[in-house]
Formats: sequence, C-alpha cells, structure tokens
Amino acid sequence: MFTDEYFMKMALNEAETAFEKDEVPIGCVIVSNNRVIARSHNLTETLNDVTAHAEMQAITSAANFLGGKYLINCTLYVTLEPCVMCSGALSWSQISKVVIGARDEQRGFINKNLTLHPKTEIVTGVMENECSSIVKEFFKSKR
Amino acid sequence: MFTDEYFMKMALNEAETAFEKDEVPIGCVIVSNNRVIARSHNLTETLNDVTAHAEMQAITSAANFLGGKYLINCTLYVTLEPCVMCSGALSWSQISKVVIGARDEQRGFINKNLTLHPKTEIVTGVMENECSSIVKEFFKSKR
Repeated sequence: MFTDEYFMKMALNEAETAFEKDEVPIGCVIVSNNRVIARSHNLTETLNDVTAHAEMQAITSAANFLGGKYLINCTLYVTLEPCVMCSGALSWSQISKVVIGARDEQRGFINKNLTLHPKTEIVTGVMENECSSIVKEFFKSKR
Repeated sequence: MFTDEYFMKMALNEAETAFEKDEVPIGCVIVSNNRVIARSHNLTETLNDVTAHAEMQAITSAANFLGGKYLINCTLYVTLEPCVMCSGALSWSQISKVVIGARDEQRGFINKNLTLHPKTEIVTGVMENECSSIVKEFFKSKR
C-alpha cells in the first residue's frame, strides 16, 4: 500500500492546490515511518517570497514536527526536481531519501553537478508524466 | 560615509549576536538606497531549522518590507560566502549586488561553480579578516 506512487499522489494533490492558487504547481510531502509529517506546495506568489518553495516549507515544517533539525529516516516526495536552493536545504537536512517526479533539466540541481548529502538516496521518475504535465499545462495557460 | 565597510560592520554586529547565542556566527544586512531594510543572523540551532541561515531570513524580510519578491536595487552584505542554498535563494531574488566578507572554500557557492543572477554584481573580501576570525574563534571554542 505505502508505495512511492502512493505518496507521490499526495504530492501531486499539493501541486494541484498550488495550480488553483495560480502558483507554479509543485507540491511535496515528507514521510516518516509511512506517516506524512509535512505537506506543502509552492507559495512564492501568495507570500511574495522567492524562498517559499514547497520543499523549503516542508523541511521547516517536518523539523518542527520532529523537534530536531535533521530529517533522519524521512523521505521527501516532490513532483519536480528540486532547484539549487532546495537541494542545498535538503543537503543540510541530511534527509534519508528524496523521490522526484519529473526532472527539471534547466533549473534542477542534477544538471548543475550538485549532490545531496552522502546519506541521501535519490529516486527519479515516479509518476513522471503526471508531475510533468501539470507544470506544462500551467505555463501553457500563461501564454 | 555609506561605504561597503560601513554596512559590513553592521553585518558583523549581527554575527556577534549569533555568537552570543551559540550559533555559527554569520550575519547579514540588506540595504536599499543606503537604508538597511533587513538584518539577521544565523538561527539554525535556536529555531531547529537548517533553512534559518542569515541570508534566507533577510531575503524574506526584505521582500516583506518592499512588498515584492524581487530585491531590485538592493545590496546584501554578508560576513561569510553564501552556501548552495542561500546562493540559490539570492539567484531567485534577482538582488542587484552581493558583498561578501570572508570566502568559504568548502561550503560556499563559488567553488561549486554556481553563479548568482546575471544582474547580480558580486564583491568579495570586504573586512575579510574580521569576518573570518569570528567563525574561526567560534569553532576553536567548540573543540
């Protein structure tokens, strides 16, 4: 039951909420022991804050829930590959696993030759089409 | 009067406040038209939050002050070279100028071959010795 698709679907729900708010539709959840401890979506426009990416909010929220700043035994599910800022934050958090929906060749951390923490396992391509489609649909609606 | 040293001294005062709180002593200010619109210091331990670097707080705070997310015509003065996370946030902010005290060869963005926004001017080495000394002193006190 608790597959990567199961939790990525929740991250996609967050992305859909962002879309409804006219935000670039990216969502994520952080899971610990099969329990969702943080969920968030991009809020940069709503909050007028470039740092309000889904991942940044989720990292702060999960640390607050856990009472400690390191996200040990936690997995982040995010619909789009994290940017440089979010990859840096994930590195500092020492999170155990990051599961990515769609790649972001231009702004994602992978093509910048950045890595996360050595302890962090990275999985890509989970529900890639759905995660990619929602972003494409958003930018098409903006043209 | 409003030299780079003038504002870096304010950033150093923030770093000293961090030191007193047993935080890694890094401080910054953001200046617009020679007016300080945000000041902050590292609070990762106090807030139990890896994202609570001085620069991240200052970017959010300055955007809040300006009522817009882009830090046009703003200068950030920071005592230590920004990390990957903070360089990513600064890129998104399109800030006009970043003035750095001491380099951080290991964790700073420059040696990771990252750049800020094309519009951003970067100056390094302002009050380098003072900015570097306070960090060294902090880690010496920890051994």
